[in-house]
Amino acid sequence: MTAPGTDTGTSTLSSVTREDLKDIATGAAILGTGGGGDPYVGRLLADVALAQHGPVRITPLGELPDDAVVVAVGVIGAPTIGLEKIQGAEEVTDAVKALDAALPHPVTHIVCTEIGGGNSMVPIVAAARLGLPLVDADGMGRAFPELQMLTPGLLGISATPLGLADEKGNTLVLRSPQNDWAEHIARAVAVSMGCTASYAMYPMAGADARAAYIPGTLSWAHRLGRLHRRSRSDHRDVPAVIAAELDGRVVFRGKVTGVERRTVGGFVRGRAVLAGAGDPAERFEIEFQNENLVARYDGRIVATVPDLICVVESDGGAPITTENLGYGMRASVLVAPSDPRWRTERGLSLVGPRYFGYDLDYVPFEHR
Amino acid sequence: MTAPGTDTGTSTLSSVTREDLKDIATGAAILGTGGGGDPYVGRLLADVALAQHGPVRITPLGELPDDAVVVAVGVIGAPTIGLEKIQGAEEVTDAVKALDAALPHPVTHIVCTEIGGGNSMVPIVAAARLGLPLVDADGMGRAFPELQMLTPGLLGISATPLGLADEKGNTLVLRSPQNDWAEHIARAVAVSMGCTASYAMYPMAGADARAAYIPGTLSWAHRLGRLHRRSRSDHRDVPAVIAAELDGRVVFRGKVTGVERRTVGGFVRGRAVLAGAGDPAERFEIEFQNENLVARYDGRIVATVPDLICVVESDGGAPITTENLGYGMRASVLVAPSDPRWRTERGLSLVGPRYFGYDLDYVPFEHR
Repeated sequence: MTAPGTDTGTSTLSSVTREDLKDIATGAAILGTGGGGDPYVGRLLADVALAQHGPVRITPLGELPDDAVVVAVGVIGAPTIGLEKIQGAEEVTDAVKALDAALPHPVTHIVCTEIGGGNSMVPIVAAARLGLPLVDADGMGRAFPELQMLTPGLLGISATPLGLADEKGNTLVLRSPQNDWAEHIARAVAVSMGCTASYAMYPMAGADARAAYIPGTLSWAHRLGRLHRRSRSDHRDVPAVIAAELDGRVVFRGKVTGVERRTVGGFVRGRAVLAGAGDPAERFEIEFQNENLVARYDGRIVATVPDLICVVESDGGAPITTENLGYGMRASVLVAPSDPRWRTERGLSLVGPRYFGYDLDYVPFEHR
Repeated sequence: MTAPGTDTGTSTLSSVTREDLKDIATGAAILGTGGGGDPYVGRLLADVALAQHGPVRITPLGELPDDAVVVAVGVIGAPTIGLEKIQGAEEVTDAVKALDAALPHPVTHIVCTEIGGGNSMVPIVAAARLGLPLVDADGMGRAFPELQMLTPGLLGISATPLGLADEKGNTLVLRSPQNDWAEHIARAVAVSMGCTASYAMYPMAGADARAAYIPGTLSWAHRLGRLHRRSRSDHRDVPAVIAAELDGRVVFRGKVTGVERRTVGGFVRGRAVLAGAGDPAERFEIEFQNENLVARYDGRIVATVPDLICVVESDGGAPITTENLGYGMRASVLVAPSDPRWRTERGLSLVGPRYFGYDLDYVPFEHR
């Protein structure tokens, strides 16, 4: 994940057009490790916004002016609900406007909190509607379920003031001394707003943003999506191509034989069980909280957060988000390394398996 | 309730001193109909604030300047929790400051949302610590459990922007197009903050406040508390004296034989059962949601919201809030008319028995 592979090349986006959306959405849905919300719904929103307002300019992370005011935009809640209660374009900009009104200087740039499913599309909606440039970066290099799990938090940058908005016109601005309290309260608000809401958070100066975010991840999602599309056209083994591109590997190919999923506490939590494609007695299990957290093969752990655990269709390689997992799907599971910041002690305290309640130490998947 | 009785006289407060607190707290706890939170805890907070900052000036409602900026202050949550997680003085002023920062003009006056238990004391804390005058008025003339149940709402005045704060330094400002949404979201926030939080809400101009609030209720609580104290010293039948003063009557004297109480959804909900003092076969029941909602004598309804249903100790007449009801207490139940605004069709749509889920029409207790 640190160095783009040869297959994708190194091209970077200078703007986001309607034509780019599909590739970005696909790439981000793969990197989203099951989370970030349905990319199809997000893409429709972004497509309408770009049709109305034209392409969105892209600012490379390293070119942000020191005095830029950068805010991270997305949707908080349970992706299962997001399939039925689709966020409105209005609520996305309402969240930014609510935060903007509470800041000493106007917002100048939008950035993605996470490269993941719908949450890679929502910042495009905000940027297009507000006429602001989008930064080619994100705060996770993948998707994580909670809002304190951003790389700026590793540098002690506050998630707040934080704007939240829903489709009914409710807005609020939250200030918390600790990012985990911001998550706790914002999650409760999102549940009360109907289990999803739009946010704008981590307002920071350009100088801070350059150090805090992971550069180039929007372009990278775009290239990954393009690679995905082309290797499907060429009838290649898409899961294997994608895994190689991510410096990872395909760890299982099988059929989904069971999905437990419940919407609880503003998340979708549950597990998927797969039986082997060759040998149905082989059992593969994935536990998730919005995103895939832990993967087991016949009871033995194969990978855990923060490493990427991605589920894609075996035939064609389309990424499958946790709310879309269904019985009978033929699926392949890839694992890949996370951004190295998450593999540090500080990173693991925020997003390691113990944070999610597992009594086990993180071991990089390539050492298992 | 519309005209103070002869026993209390018509004296009005020009300031609140430490010596006034006990009488105000007692009077407000009676008018609080079981709700508003423990008056003892609130009184201790107010006593410290007055000791540190001196007496609080009182502004009669009718003397508010047109351009005053008036905000209503109190605590939202379950009073059961308020007994253990006592609100800090800091969080009370944090809520006002958070709201103040979101308003075009600075806050000039504090007012009580409700004359009820601890929530008659919390605004004194805010006024003392911020050096602002307190308006001799409130928005209920009693206590109700939800924040859209204020007389300003009857005039279409918005509860928001609304500031919320907790003891951990979390603050937020909420804006809602509808007051019932503000209640729904603020309640969820209060639960996430630990089941109680301090608020500042209904910011409005003095000209609006003069029309929107119920005048003189702080003085009235003070006079009621003084009457209570004196009639106890004089060994009078305190429940009967208080009931007469409220234009109401004592409807039951008995012993608490059962209390069901659960903290749910940011409220304390439940029921108390009393057996007759003379005939233990007589059964009296009170259902509550923070405040007492419905009273039944042998299954027959005696009174419902918005009329006042007050429980006091039979011996001495000390008011008993719903979180303090306990087995074996000898208690008397008084009922009294609410402010006439609540007995209108519009008032009943906000606070009548149907709002609280009872399939029955409101009938003034004096016609039952």
